[in-house]
Amino acid sequence: MSGTQPTATLWRDVTLFDGHRTHPEPMAVIVEANRIAQVVPMARADDARLAECREMARGGVLTPGLVDCHTHLVFGGSRADEFEQRLEGVSYEEIARRGGGILSTVNATRAASEDELFAAARPRLEALMAEGVTTVEIKSGYGLTVSDELKMLRVARRLGEALPVRVVTTLLGAHALPPEFANDSDGYIRLVCEEMIPAADADGLADAVDVFCEKIAFSVAQCERVFAAAKDHGLPIKAHAEQLSSLGGSAAAARFGALSADHIEYLDEAGVAALRDAGSVAVLLPGAYHTLRETQLPPIDALRRAGVPMAVATDANPGSSPIFDPTLMLNFACTLFRLTPQEALAGMTAHGAQALGLAEQGLGRIQAGAPADLCLWDVDTPAALAYAVQPGRLRQRIFNGALRHD
Amino acid sequence: MSGTQPTATLWRDVTLFDGHRTHPEPMAVIVEANRIAQVVPMARADDARLAECREMARGGVLTPGLVDCHTHLVFGGSRADEFEQRLEGVSYEEIARRGGGILSTVNATRAASEDELFAAARPRLEALMAEGVTTVEIKSGYGLTVSDELKMLRVARRLGEALPVRVVTTLLGAHALPPEFANDSDGYIRLVCEEMIPAADADGLADAVDVFCEKIAFSVAQCERVFAAAKDHGLPIKAHAEQLSSLGGSAAAARFGALSADHIEYLDEAGVAALRDAGSVAVLLPGAYHTLRETQLPPIDALRRAGVPMAVATDANPGSSPIFDPTLMLNFACTLFRLTPQEALAGMTAHGAQALGLAEQGLGRIQAGAPADLCLWDVDTPAALAYAVQPGRLRQRIFNGALRHD
Ligand SMILES: [Zn+2]
Ligand SMILES: [Zn+2]
Repeated sequence: MSGTQPTATLWRDVTLFDGHRTHPEPMAVIVEANRIAQVVPMARADDARLAECREMARGGVLTPGLVDCHTHLVFGGSRADEFEQRLEGVSYEEIARRGGGILSTVNATRAASEDELFAAARPRLEALMAEGVTTVEIKSGYGLTVSDELKMLRVARRLGEALPVRVVTTLLGAHALPPEFANDSDGYIRLVCEEMIPAADADGLADAVDVFCEKIAFSVAQCERVFAAAKDHGLPIKAHAEQLSSLGGSAAAARFGALSADHIEYLDEAGVAALRDAGSVAVLLPGAYHTLRETQLPPIDALRRAGVPMAVATDANPGSSPIFDPTLMLNFACTLFRLTPQEALAGMTAHGAQALGLAEQGLGRIQAGAPADLCLWDVDTPAALAYAVQPGRLRQRIFNGALRHD
Repeated sequence: MSGTQPTATLWRDVTLFDGHRTHPEPMAVIVEANRIAQVVPMARADDARLAECREMARGGVLTPGLVDCHTHLVFGGSRADEFEQRLEGVSYEEIARRGGGILSTVNATRAASEDELFAAARPRLEALMAEGVTTVEIKSGYGLTVSDELKMLRVARRLGEALPVRVVTTLLGAHALPPEFANDSDGYIRLVCEEMIPAADADGLADAVDVFCEKIAFSVAQCERVFAAAKDHGLPIKAHAEQLSSLGGSAAAARFGALSADHIEYLDEAGVAALRDAGSVAVLLPGAYHTLRETQLPPIDALRRAGVPMAVATDANPGSSPIFDPTLMLNFACTLFRLTPQEALAGMTAHGAQALGLAEQGLGRIQAGAPADLCLWDVDTPAALAYAVQPGRLRQRIFNGALRHD
């Protein structure tokens, strides 16, 4: 309480969404250094304590900083031309003949330098941050060689060093079959397991390992080999699964204690039970659902009944979800998937953090002891963030205790 | 050419979308005072002339300022709670019993002062402007009394005076049946025709008159009475029509030479022909389509074949399209309605202006003589604006010849 102590900062009279629920009465939140020190109803706050603090704001809606737990932000090239051609009536075959599709992104990513990839990804990440993101996961998966996958992960790490945002990296070597292995997908999986994962781990570049389990990508058996290799290196795993069909990728991931199964439009009851039993998070990606004009809804009611935590993420990527707007995902989660606004917000805060294995340290929540990542919004209620699509309502973005809204 | 002349301003080496098409080569655009003076390929530009100009930018994509030709930006209250309740399982009946739906907006709008409505609408309009809007239409329609409708229109006018944006006002008295006329819709239409339209016209508050032609609103015969009254006052007309069913409202509007028919998911071939013959614009509103989870697509191919100009707008409103993001509408128009990116851009520039009767003065186009409303975007191609959803790519917004991006 002496004058030489570092000043605590205060948000007073805020409507508080704490990562799980909205508090019924006006709240005070006090931050000391880079941690949340106190969360208390205004009516029960110690006025002397409040008076000591530097007041950051009165009123507004305070939420945890948003967690975007599934992105492919680092990539070379653009697929805008392909988007345009398809709408102008050019067939998929013709676009593939012209070198379109994911392989065009792979080629452009391989051809790009680290600096070029960094410069291209930076404004995308800044767009996410301008709408509230304080933690973002970034996957590799467009290099598909050991050196190009590591290059992508290094770019992701650099983004986290250069900008006031937490970056979590995921090695997604098993994203697509590279042309060099056209007739040897087992050979490519061997490369992922025996060279890519060890190299990423040796350089400390991967916080987790991901796979794309689908007929057009890799089989359950192949994904299990990747999971086993990741586990050998002590890396947590996650999976793109049940997006286009029900192969059982989610259940396989759950058997390996996956942090999350992502997409899961085609997840069946057994898959829901597997996620529940493993404590895995279901990551919903309504941007891809929108972009692909998917009609199969993920099994929201079954997940809800089973108590599987649901996260929501942008899936920001150049093909199936070129969407760099996290608050739009709150609207999509409600409008398209019928989540409640509270579920959608939990999906981009507490449950997003859980999908990244960061829940234990309190990330994605506003509670004493948690890292002070906060968003103050110019809205009347937390639900308004999902209800109205209106960029620019973020008044303050607090990263690690400091105001970073510039 | 003397030193005392006002300096012309120059955008050089831009990729130019001119309101209808993207030019194949790098272009120069010169603005003098508040008008576009010259539009010329770089290869054919007079270097001495370019050197005289103040250079505003090199490179980037230059488009006309965006025209949002259909909004309900002025309203009281919020429907975020209702949105939340519906997703939490409260029935429509119960929400109506609690005073929800459009009548809650009517009550809140009636209860609000002009200043309160202005303060509430301003950030919504600023959100549109931050994503490129330089011309916006704003409808009344939540007052439903003579004085409350005029109040809304005065607020719309004030917004245009206070902010660097063109505001076009539309009297939409025939939006919904107010409770005072619960069993007398003809009586209410008489009020609209005999009192509301004359009063709005006397005060110069309405640039056009609109109706909602639908089973849940007003009949074709009632709308025709409104159209006739508008015509008596020399006011152009437009219609919300064929949104939920095919009543023939668009064809009726066309018979009165409507500027536009809006929504038109259920428009049939005869309706398309009527719009074509009348020279009316078809205004597409994919935000309402998204929010209402509509599945009936507007007849895009038939409109295209008939050569009916298609505009795209936000329909920004508290109920069926709480979306205050014009560039998102470019994506929705392509992804949901399968417009090409060029059609979507024309829909929010040249064709949007045409839907407001502003095409003759060159608004919505980049051509010599037109008002200098321009947007410079940090994207590689115009198509990228529709392809990626990424707020914040607007580098410069030029309104009436001056940079207004603050
Ligand atoms: Zn993904
Ligand atoms: Zn409307």
